[in-house]
Amino acid sequence: MPPQHYQKIAQHLREAINSGRLNTGDELPSEAELCEQFGSSRGPVRQAMMLLRTEGMISTGRGRRSTVLARSDNNDFDSTISISAWLRYFGYTPGQRTLFLARKPADETTAGHLRITPGDHIVTLRRLRLADDRPFAIERSYFPVPVGRHILDADTDTTSIMETLAANDIVVDNLSRCLNAVVADEEQAELLDVRPGEPLMRIRMSASDQYGQIIFFADNLFLAENLTMSLNTVRGTPSSARLTPLD
Amino acid sequence: MPPQHYQKIAQHLREAINSGRLNTGDELPSEAELCEQFGSSRGPVRQAMMLLRTEGMISTGRGRRSTVLARSDNNDFDSTISISAWLRYFGYTPGQRTLFLARKPADETTAGHLRITPGDHIVTLRRLRLADDRPFAIERSYFPVPVGRHILDADTDTTSIMETLAANDIVVDNLSRCLNAVVADEEQAELLDVRPGEPLMRIRMSASDQYGQIIFFADNLFLAENLTMSLNTVRGTPSSARLTPLD
Repeated sequence: MPPQHYQKIAQHLREAINSGRLNTGDELPSEAELCEQFGSSRGPVRQAMMLLRTEGMISTGRGRRSTVLARSDNNDFDSTISISAWLRYFGYTPGQRTLFLARKPADETTAGHLRITPGDHIVTLRRLRLADDRPFAIERSYFPVPVGRHILDADTDTTSIMETLAANDIVVDNLSRCLNAVVADEEQAELLDVRPGEPLMRIRMSASDQYGQIIFFADNLFLAENLTMSLNTVRGTPSSARLTPLD
Repeated sequence: MPPQHYQKIAQHLREAINSGRLNTGDELPSEAELCEQFGSSRGPVRQAMMLLRTEGMISTGRGRRSTVLARSDNNDFDSTISISAWLRYFGYTPGQRTLFLARKPADETTAGHLRITPGDHIVTLRRLRLADDRPFAIERSYFPVPVGRHILDADTDTTSIMETLAANDIVVDNLSRCLNAVVADEEQAELLDVRPGEPLMRIRMSASDQYGQIIFFADNLFLAENLTMSLNTVRGTPSSARLTPLD
């Protein structure tokens, strides 16, 4: 489907916000001004505003100017699934040191995450991740064999896993993440070159393709200093973010 | 605007998923089946599927059945802004003990979060939060005076702040949250009845009304054991979730 008029208006406003031409707290032009700017009637302008409201980018109040709440990260999906892409996005040089790579039977928990039968073979990868040559995260990834066989063939010290998979037409379409706070045990602390007891952000990720097939499950530990997950929620709008007191 | 046909189809599917009639990994009916079920042409059915895909609830693959990825929490906004509502939602009895409540000038950081001038008066509330009578979180909330004066009048040991504000027609419409992992210092550990060094999830929240006016800023510390933030991201779809290596 070609984009409808309201989608073009929304995209224009999104770019104004993401580029910083409009900042958090700034007022948007009035409906009348937007109608004139886009040669549009009120309907599409209002639909565009509702869409941006749904995305958590703007507030909309009756009879008042809408204001900018937050930027979106529409084009940034690859940096949510690849630590390398994510570090590069923020100006760091990514690196990695492979600790463990093997094909072996899945235990019950991992099999559950990969939706396979316990005992089925999987590929397990454990790496120390570096940012500007400094230890930053411990990566523990698990792949079903049809995906993981490409990892076994790769040089995991020099290669981005996501790029290896993409070269084999395996493309992540959906990522589900669970975050919680833990502290480093002795082994983790030694790898990360910190003292035991340092706070870590544990991020478990489950990635699937556009058909809902699981591509990998990962259970990663990040040094928590300055690592922040930010998110925006709007009343009356579906949100996948969910804080639960129990695992 | 009354809901359009595609929105009704989307809502029907959302309810099927949220009620558990369709579970994660299940296939959705085919496009043809949905067209027949809703007496609809392909257009609205496809629009409904795109909407659910955008919400991270389903996968959509060309020529294959869509599968269920995750539930949504459309109707759960109040439990994201109120610790009391959130605990009740999960079957706990919420409680609180006020540690500090005062009207005083804002320091520079807090003024920035509330978008006021440093030195302007604010209302500061510090409470120990309980779940089934056990310490669970330290709440540190900051309100601009037009909002906070209602808090000064309330019994903060027995009252839900969000209910007090709602009774005064102050309604949160947008919530922005930042999560990171820290460890308890001695004072925090004593309040929470744990040992210093226990992992905590620090959640900073900024809440605004539908006009973008700030209602409160909070800097809360939760016992991290079992506290999990889960979220879902879909390629090509705007997401407000953003993991940053620097604060």
